[in-house]
Amino acid sequence: MIYLQDIRDAADRIRPYAHITPVLTSESINGMIGAELFFKCENLQKIGAFKFRGATNAVFALSDEEVAKGVATHSSGNHAQAVALAAKNRGTTAHIVMPRSAKKVKIEAVRGYGGQVTLCEPTLRSRQETLERVVEKTGAVVIHPYNDWSIIAGQATAGYELLLQATDLDAVLAPVGGGGLLSGTALTAHYVAPGLKVYGAEPKNADDAQRSFRSGKWVESKDPKTICDGLLTSLGDITFEVIKSHVTDILTASEESIVNAMRLVWERMKIIIEPSSAVPLACLIENPDILAGKRVGIIVTGGNVDLAELPWT
Amino acid sequence: MIYLQDIRDAADRIRPYAHITPVLTSESINGMIGAELFFKCENLQKIGAFKFRGATNAVFALSDEEVAKGVATHSSGNHAQAVALAAKNRGTTAHIVMPRSAKKVKIEAVRGYGGQVTLCEPTLRSRQETLERVVEKTGAVVIHPYNDWSIIAGQATAGYELLLQATDLDAVLAPVGGGGLLSGTALTAHYVAPGLKVYGAEPKNADDAQRSFRSGKWVESKDPKTICDGLLTSLGDITFEVIKSHVTDILTASEESIVNAMRLVWERMKIIIEPSSAVPLACLIENPDILAGKRVGIIVTGGNVDLAELPWT
Repeated sequence: MIYLQDIRDAADRIRPYAHITPVLTSESINGMIGAELFFKCENLQKIGAFKFRGATNAVFALSDEEVAKGVATHSSGNHAQAVALAAKNRGTTAHIVMPRSAKKVKIEAVRGYGGQVTLCEPTLRSRQETLERVVEKTGAVVIHPYNDWSIIAGQATAGYELLLQATDLDAVLAPVGGGGLLSGTALTAHYVAPGLKVYGAEPKNADDAQRSFRSGKWVESKDPKTICDGLLTSLGDITFEVIKSHVTDILTASEESIVNAMRLVWERMKIIIEPSSAVPLACLIENPDILAGKRVGIIVTGGNVDLAELPWT
Repeated sequence: MIYLQDIRDAADRIRPYAHITPVLTSESINGMIGAELFFKCENLQKIGAFKFRGATNAVFALSDEEVAKGVATHSSGNHAQAVALAAKNRGTTAHIVMPRSAKKVKIEAVRGYGGQVTLCEPTLRSRQETLERVVEKTGAVVIHPYNDWSIIAGQATAGYELLLQATDLDAVLAPVGGGGLLSGTALTAHYVAPGLKVYGAEPKNADDAQRSFRSGKWVESKDPKTICDGLLTSLGDITFEVIKSHVTDILTASEESIVNAMRLVWERMKIIIEPSSAVPLACLIENPDILAGKRVGIIVTGGNVDLAELPWT
């Protein structure tokens, strides 16, 4: 388990490296939703995603001996860049296993941060086996993308900052994939603002977290078809336990609502958010009564989008 | 003339209505440019552009009697929305003359703020004549887009905030069209940070301000061909006088550099900026020696872009 002090330690640990991201508001979107929304802009975080918080906390929580042989992970997305930059900042090597199907721009970004990329087949099995081989060869420490207390404490700092920046919130919404951000947010609320409601937000087409939460029994995410490439994974055993205990509910939204919400934020707020980040707003658009008239924080998780392939062109 | 107190009064006047916009940084762009850049994000301002500052100051500086019959202007772009929202906030009517060629989304935005739109032919002459007729009929007060001391004082508040948010700057760059923002920025620097260099940034294809500045003689902007729809106008007599006295130099950039700089900011900083806003960065990319190793503020003027028609798709 982690406690408030672990979240505070994580905040201190990442402070020299991470941005304190702004909280933005939009009167026109508030008017449409009928609530007062506070967007915590982790798309403006280093590497363009909140994942940098968890990776930085995990990498810097290791001892000098532990990081001497490098760190390693498998990821096709933001966690790969996050670990690569965190390792660079720590002065060690990041070994990143990436599927051949990963976008070239993401592979280049990892290499740009000095990460050593090993390509593998685009299956979970190949990713895991390749990572095992890399670790055997290098002795690097594995940095899990979400099911790890250091990662959760790091992701928790986004909500921790938000609660300092936007006061008297009634609720916070965060997207849920593996559950690192959502469990960190829920623990922050539990310790710092006990009355605060915490909702997960998920694509309807990848509703394993909602089904897990509502049934109390872990449901696997099986090859979901959604534009939200950051929300494809199943909950971990650690994140599921935290979510069961400390989350209010998990909401879902259709693909169409997600794309509409994404475009709405681009147009009205002039910030670039990736589809996964639009899910909380899409859930509010589909469920306008749940938080009507309330002060609601939304964690905007990232802004890594291929600008040549937008979902509305 | 305006003095420091006028800029401070403008800051006080707009405070209840305008955002204090964040200043963002990007290590990767700093690395490319070889300077430390501080982006003052007026694209995140209300209506998506700094123009809201000047319009709000001008509308709220009027007496109750003066605004009783409304305010009026002609504009195809951000100034139209700015005046419409400022008038709404003041509780009066905005009469906006817009060319038939204006984007539908811009006309709708003005109407969304309660503005009364009168369409005209897309020529300066038709715009001015139509505005005269509207003013004759309504008795509304004309709010000029740039060549007006209240407007200049309002635009000056962007640089005034920037100098509070980013300390020890060596230089500030601002795009120059009619010159309201640039002259406001130059006056702020003159009063608050006398050693600070202030540069205008302009498309090479619309270099009337550079030619005016360097020759000392006003040069008209004649039907320029540039993607920067916010920078088509000539300097006014007031703004030109201020710029002659208080600006260090005016730089230019090619259309290609402007589009590349725009995309670079979208990709690395995850914010939506319009082409006009990319001109200062494009000028630095074309002139890397001028501010190498310096701390440089850049005023990002706006983010109003048609998302269905991006210059790289």
